[in-house]
Amino acid sequence: MKLYTKTGDGGQTGLYGADRVSKAHIRVEAYGTVDELNSAVGLARAHNGRSHKPHAALDADLEYLQNALFDVGADLATRSGTPYAKNVSRIDEQDVAFIEAMIDRYAEGVPPIRNFIHPAGTLTAAALHVARAVARRAEREVIRLLHEEEANAQVQVYLNRVSDLLFAMARAANQVAGLQEEEWAVKGRR
Amino acid sequence: MKLYTKTGDGGQTGLYGADRVSKAHIRVEAYGTVDELNSAVGLARAHNGRSHKPHAALDADLEYLQNALFDVGADLATRSGTPYAKNVSRIDEQDVAFIEAMIDRYAEGVPPIRNFIHPAGTLTAAALHVARAVARRAEREVIRLLHEEEANAQVQVYLNRVSDLLFAMARAANQVAGLQEEEWAVKGRR
Amino acid sequence: MKLYTKTGDGGQTGLYGADRVSKAHIRVEAYGTVDELNSAVGLARAHNGRSHKPHAALDADLEYLQNALFDVGADLATRSGTPYAKNVSRIDEQDVAFIEAMIDRYAEGVPPIRNFIHPAGTLTAAALHVARAVARRAEREVIRLLHEEEANAQVQVYLNRVSDLLFAMARAANQVAGLQEEEWAVKGRR
Ligand code: B12
Ligand code: B12
Ligand code: B12
Ligand SMILES: C[C@H]1O[C@@H](n2cnc3c(N)ncnc32)[C@H](O)[C@@H]1O
Ligand SMILES: C[C@H]1O[C@@H](n2cnc3c(N)ncnc32)[C@H](O)[C@@H]1O
Ligand SMILES: C[C@H]1O[C@@H](n2cnc3c(N)ncnc32)[C@H](O)[C@@H]1O
Ligand SMILES: [Mg+2]
Ligand SMILES: [Mg+2]
Ligand SMILES: [Mg+2]
Repeated sequence: MKLYTKTGDGGQTGLYGADRVSKAHIRVEAYGTVDELNSAVGLARAHNGRSHKPHAALDADLEYLQNALFDVGADLATRSGTPYAKNVSRIDEQDVAFIEAMIDRYAEGVPPIRNFIHPAGTLTAAALHVARAVARRAEREVIRLLHEEEANAQVQVYLNRVSDLLFAMARAANQVAGLQEEEWAVKGRR
Repeated sequence: MKLYTKTGDGGQTGLYGADRVSKAHIRVEAYGTVDELNSAVGLARAHNGRSHKPHAALDADLEYLQNALFDVGADLATRSGTPYAKNVSRIDEQDVAFIEAMIDRYAEGVPPIRNFIHPAGTLTAAALHVARAVARRAEREVIRLLHEEEANAQVQVYLNRVSDLLFAMARAANQVAGLQEEEWAVKGRR
Repeated sequence: MKLYTKTGDGGQTGLYGADRVSKAHIRVEAYGTVDELNSAVGLARAHNGRSHKPHAALDADLEYLQNALFDVGADLATRSGTPYAKNVSRIDEQDVAFIEAMIDRYAEGVPPIRNFIHPAGTLTAAALHVARAVARRAEREVIRLLHEEEANAQVQVYLNRVSDLLFAMARAANQVAGLQEEEWAVKGRR
């Protein structure tokens, strides 16, 4: 089977199950953005792997996240009540609780935030900040989807926590590297 | 001539030819996203160039792609029937066929896919996956443009194949580096 | 205070001041995209810091830019006339002039452009081009906001100049590294 099936050349594509929709449909935008997020996470992992001192726990947690983002993608790609819906494991409160515990673990090692910090530092930290911002874009697209048709609201909550997790991970990555955080120096005060 | 011409400060900008439109116009969104894609391809090229074992054929193919993405940008920036349209070489079936041959060449070296693979691996592979996801975003914007006004439908098909090409290239980059692909471990199975 | 406050789990969020809006609101899209831009700038800084010959002036200018992008974010997050508006320093003509002087400084060291150049080269240059394209996306979102409700028009102008600045910086980064620029070879001429 070739990668390019040409079935989408008219601008329509298939969801998981029988439905066909425009590739411009907000549902496709939502899981397409989650795919972009997954790729941004992969770039952060690659930077961690090539750093002076790769952080093994971070790699494992990001691998977990990459798997989970495919669960998120499958959830978004599958309308409830359609034939294949039974194959899909929906994102639920337990997934959210799992990621909150992970946030707490990363956040506990770094000082409380008093001000915005520059999304910068090591390559791993900076790439995690990029992923964080893409996670927030994905959350916004999911909210647009929820405004338009039925979908799983836990996916929005989950993506929100993913962005908090990536923030906490970025701070941890800089701390492990011994880098000082730069705080926002508001205009007028610089 | 200064870089900043200030002619766009009112929020309108020029297409190629005489027309002026809002910078929020879907046509500008479409070629602006192709510009973002071209930049993502450039980052992947830079990573390849700095890797332990730069892949010369990959660099040449990505250079081809960067040129082609400017052809795509010019195509999108030029409404048919306007004065400068005759200067522009439109994307056509031959361009699509050319890129399909390239996909086949990269795909042939790697095992068939049975499951989604993590967009990860070497820095080059991970950056190619980011570009892949941006190509898909660009495809979606072009479809929105096609829903709204006349444009070249081959551009959508071309961008679709670009995302398949970048996928095949990412897999090849990991294979050359001797990296094992990670497959999606579906929830409930982890 | 935990990172995740759960107050946004219903899909609404707070602006700076009392107003609550949908996270899908164009105002949130605008400052969310500026956050993505700030992160892209952070990645370029990280690449510069890890290059063979880090460019100290570039790092300082990008640090300035990261601060300024938080000023931009605060400006966008704060509706005029709301209770906290008095705390915010708005982007003004002087900020624009400041960045124009910076553009001139970077542009003066490189030959005038005669054709589009590939967004590529060193890792720093390529990452600056990615940031440039994201700045242009942010500009487009701000224009959408301006089409829909009152906001500070100088923010659009400022973001426009930011993209020109990042272009000039990318060219300078390649020049310092002794890299030759690749020009667009138009279809038909390759
Ligand atoms: C939604 C979707 C996407 C979305 C979201 C997917 C997600 N989960 O996050 C995104 C945007 C990520 C995506 C990307 C791509 N996709 Co897609 N995608 C689909 C679609 C519509 C549904 C997939 C899905 O999520 N199913 C839900 C899950 C639960 O069901 P399932 O896939 O059957 O999963 C079961 C099996 O995978 C099995 N399983 C699990 N592990 C394993 C392991 C082995 C060894 C085996 C045998 C089985 C197995 O168990 C799972 C649960 O029951 C399918 C088409 C279709 N209608 O099925 C195309 C499809 C799979 N995609 C396709 C392609 C080409 C791609 C891309 C390469 C496109 C590109 N150029 O970027 C990428 C690849 C990304 C990657 N990293 O691998 C093609 C594959 C064609 C081919 N040659 O095989 C398909 C068939 C569409 C098509 N007709 O063109 N895709
Ligand atoms: C559409 C457009 C874009 C789009 C898409 C372009 C594409 N093809 O992908 C995108 C978003 C990429 C873009 C980006 C930028 N753009 Co622009 N763009 C345009 C626009 C409107 C049309 C360009 C085009 O594609 N023309 C179609 C082609 C076929 O025509 P052409 O450009 O005349 O090409 C011919 C010549 O280039 C010639 N040629 C080819 N090779 C060579 C080589 C040499 C040596 C020579 C002499 C000629 C030559 O042959 C071509 C075919 O006939 C022009 C303004 C205009 N109306 O012309 C601005 C314009 C060229 N852009 C401009 C700017 C500033 C930029 C950016 C720097 C903005 C930024 N901050 O990011 C970047 C630069 C990107 C880069 N990598 O170099 C300015 C340049 C100002 C200046 N000082 O020269 C212009 C003039 C707009 C303006 N008035 O402000 N742009
Ligand atoms: C808009 C906004 C954003 C926007 C834009 C902000 C910008 N300026 O660019 C963006 C999208 C960037 C953003 C991102 C994040 N945000 Co936010 N954000 C806000 C919001 C709504 C307003 C912030 C703002 O810009 N205020 C305008 C400025 C002028 O006012 P100010 O913040 O009071 O600034 C004054 C003080 O900071 C003080 N100050 C300056 N420097 C210093 C230094 C010290 C030491 C002290 C004590 C004070 C101080 O002087 C400033 C001027 O008077 C607040 C909630 C709120 N309503 O206040 C949340 C808020 C601050 N954000 C929050 C969070 C969690 C985040 C993120 C971590 C989310 C994520 N997962 O990505 C990131 C962090 C980004 C980073 N790099 O640090 C939480 C923080 C919760 C907590 N535990 O403290 C808040 C409180 C919202 C909430 N209730 O959940 N945010
Ligand atoms: C930290 C601040 O970011 C804003 N906010 C909340 N969710 C998102 C999102 N998905 N994207 C962008 N901004 C968001 C709110 O204003 C919040 O208070
Ligand atoms: C692999 C799957 O990705 C979806 N799909 C097809 N085209 C796009 C695009 N441009 N962006 C996001 N998703 C897309 C379809 O559901 C397809 O089956
Ligand atoms: C260089 C060219 O890019 C287009 N242009 C101007 N502003 C933007 C933007 N924010 N995003 C994308 N394209 C833009 C115009 O067509 C301009 O002439
Ligand atoms: Mg396809
Ligand atoms: Mg301009
Ligand atoms: Mg929150």
